[in-house]
Amino acid sequence: MNDLLQKPRKVYVSRTIEFNAAHRLFNPLWTESENFKTYGKCSNKYGHGHNYLLEITIRGFVNNNTGFLFDLKELKNILEEEIIARFDHRHLNHDVPELRECVPTTEVLAVLIWDILEERLLAINNREISLHEVKLYETGKNAVRYLGE
Amino acid sequence: MNDLLQKPRKVYVSRTIEFNAAHRLFNPLWTESENFKTYGKCSNKYGHGHNYLLEITIRGFVNNNTGFLFDLKELKNILEEEIIARFDHRHLNHDVPELRECVPTTEVLAVLIWDILEERLLAINNREISLHEVKLYETGKNAVRYLGE
Amino acid sequence: MNDLLQKPRKVYVSRTIEFNAAHRLFNPLWTESENFKTYGKCSNKYGHGHNYLLEITIRGFVNNNTGFLFDLKELKNILEEEIIARFDHRHLNHDVPELRECVPTTEVLAVLIWDILEERLLAINNREISLHEVKLYETGKNAVRYLGE
Amino acid sequence: MNDLLQKPRKVYVSRTIEFNAAHRLFNPLWTESENFKTYGKCSNKYGHGHNYLLEITIRGFVNNNTGFLFDLKELKNILEEEIIARFDHRHLNHDVPELRECVPTTEVLAVLIWDILEERLLAINNREISLHEVKLYETGKNAVRYLGE
Amino acid sequence: MNDLLQKPRKVYVSRTIEFNAAHRLFNPLWTESENFKTYGKCSNKYGHGHNYLLEITIRGFVNNNTGFLFDLKELKNILEEEIIARFDHRHLNHDVPELRECVPTTEVLAVLIWDILEERLLAINNREISLHEVKLYETGKNAVRYLGE
Amino acid sequence: MNDLLQKPRKVYVSRTIEFNAAHRLFNPLWTESENFKTYGKCSNKYGHGHNYLLEITIRGFVNNNTGFLFDLKELKNILEEEIIARFDHRHLNHDVPELRECVPTTEVLAVLIWDILEERLLAINNREISLHEVKLYETGKNAVRYLGE
Repeated sequence: MNDLLQKPRKVYVSRTIEFNAAHRLFNPLWTESENFKTYGKCSNKYGHGHNYLLEITIRGFVNNNTGFLFDLKELKNILEEEIIARFDHRHLNHDVPELRECVPTTEVLAVLIWDILEERLLAINNREISLHEVKLYETGKNAVRYLGE
Repeated sequence: MNDLLQKPRKVYVSRTIEFNAAHRLFNPLWTESENFKTYGKCSNKYGHGHNYLLEITIRGFVNNNTGFLFDLKELKNILEEEIIARFDHRHLNHDVPELRECVPTTEVLAVLIWDILEERLLAINNREISLHEVKLYETGKNAVRYLGE
Repeated sequence: MNDLLQKPRKVYVSRTIEFNAAHRLFNPLWTESENFKTYGKCSNKYGHGHNYLLEITIRGFVNNNTGFLFDLKELKNILEEEIIARFDHRHLNHDVPELRECVPTTEVLAVLIWDILEERLLAINNREISLHEVKLYETGKNAVRYLGE
Repeated sequence: MNDLLQKPRKVYVSRTIEFNAAHRLFNPLWTESENFKTYGKCSNKYGHGHNYLLEITIRGFVNNNTGFLFDLKELKNILEEEIIARFDHRHLNHDVPELRECVPTTEVLAVLIWDILEERLLAINNREISLHEVKLYETGKNAVRYLGE
Repeated sequence: MNDLLQKPRKVYVSRTIEFNAAHRLFNPLWTESENFKTYGKCSNKYGHGHNYLLEITIRGFVNNNTGFLFDLKELKNILEEEIIARFDHRHLNHDVPELRECVPTTEVLAVLIWDILEERLLAINNREISLHEVKLYETGKNAVRYLGE
Repeated sequence: MNDLLQKPRKVYVSRTIEFNAAHRLFNPLWTESENFKTYGKCSNKYGHGHNYLLEITIRGFVNNNTGFLFDLKELKNILEEEIIARFDHRHLNHDVPELRECVPTTEVLAVLIWDILEERLLAINNREISLHEVKLYETGKNAVRYLGE
């Protein structure tokens, strides 16, 4: 490779995917009316849904041979296995074991996605990359970012 | 008003709204496996969901006094009452009586929205406008248009 | 050119530009309160503004030599001279002579843009193209189309 | 199915895909300077490229049993085989036999895509659907529509 | 709540709103030609306008009971009262007292919005959240971020 | 200027531009099949292309007289000279001398753009601003950020 990569260059690479899921905001420890007071129409019995947009950012140094931070085909496979298979075309309250005792807010879902991906990326044991940020859009107007803090 | 509106001018005015709903593609006359063959993961038991984007287009001649085709505040109210109240934060299979015996595909939902809005706009008895098109995006990649044909 | 253009092919070519303008919806023949009743906060005294997005569509047959319907550089120049120079960074009520006796609604502005561009395109005397549609977005949610009818 | 589909309903279903390709606007019958005069920097020797966005619209009547116009999974497969395999990650001038004697403008590419898809859809021999429109965006600002006329 | 929230989780929650306003870039201490030299057509006398897109980000720890960082309905109300009521459908130079002696650039407007929202959020006296960032898009191409530094 | 700017205010100003380029991911030190193993169809012989979207962010304190961080007209000129002139309508592997011995991945391109712009901005010798971030989108789904680390 050329001079550009003679000094280490730390980059942040983002990949965006979409999954379509239903959810209901409902805390089983509360009454119906307590739930309605906190969650409004988001607590409707059968749930509603979203086209969730998920932006995953990893960080690390550019590889001198490939010019990549990380092989995006491999990242795409990881996201298929860990995210799409778990959440896409699912009802988050019923179909996702990790969320069964949770209220599946965007905040909670972003945190869960972080935990899943961090564990998977650590298993690769590639010192060059770390998970930097999970950004989850519930709609075009609402988003939650979690950075592992 | 000025010379611009001395001759009649036929315009098409579009208004876009969003609603968040869950649905399940499932024909109750078929077995589970027949449903899965046709609808794949869209037939998962508890449903999934979308941020539906709905673009309503009305057509007619510009009013010489107001410069409007139709008062957008009134159109906004109609869409609140007829669309948001019916579909937003709902599970289409369970919560929408008009869809109970349907498979709530985007096609069927677009047709239903047309029927609802056409009836409501006819009730206004304003000769200047007619419903021109219902365009419904299920995701950024899939859309259905219905023009009442 | 090749076989693809041996038979005439009628295409619709769209070009999108943006201009930033202020306007006030106010009919000088009416009182302040009549204006407020019709236009609400759009009638506020000093006006407000928008990033108008304008999509111009021309139609005609693909030229056998160039593979173009029309030279987009020439179209870009026309739009600079006729649209950007007239409307961009202007207050539509004060700065645009053609709109002085109008209420500059999106409908009226779309009609005016049609009249300006149709005259200019006719002057080119190129039989291959005609103006097909003016589509003007006031916001991401509201748009008006005019097709010269 | 329910009452909604008791009368035939004609819908237009759109599916959007993206492909990334290089091209050079260059007519081999002309000199370099004639090409530069017509195509400007689009005639640069090695070509440049785009994220082409392609919106395919088919039309027909909603199927009474499925609630679909057409199985989108099947449409997706057709687009993979006919469009992605041919154009994605290709240099249009070098890699696409159908374009070798053409100037691969957006107009020409839209017409070619129409011819390919119309032939493929006719082969399905499904009377319910016809190809309605090919819309191809070269950038967010430029698009060409072809409807088979 | 479940195990996911047993350790504190710091999240960043963003909410986006739009307001439509006019403004003129003009420093009253300078001559017309000095203003034109600095601000170009942005100094035109009656002003022009924009669809401002405002993204507010707050940060803090996810609440163990609700799964929320902060009630988005309450945030929505705050933004209605503090931002929409002040700026929407206004001419920033004439209608906003806080901006009367300012040149209402995007930078200045972002700083003002920060000051307004920080004071309001401090008044809630909710230790869990702080204002993290104000991001203001004047157009799709230009944005200013202010983080209170 | 007014009270708002009596204390220093550090802002981040972003400007987005687009350029259309072709590239081929190919390491000349490797065989064809090694390249295909790493880069897949991105290593196709003649290259493919993208509408690259580039977001440049500069940071510094708002100027008390102008209300600007930096004159956006000047920034626009710099981006025309340094970015558009170099990369737009080019084949990155053939036409950009700085990339000739590189694999022109998005990572490498983002780093090169940083180096070019940082040098240019330092030459202005304006203490108020520094380059903060280069963000380069190859497609709507993939982006790389580089902050000079």
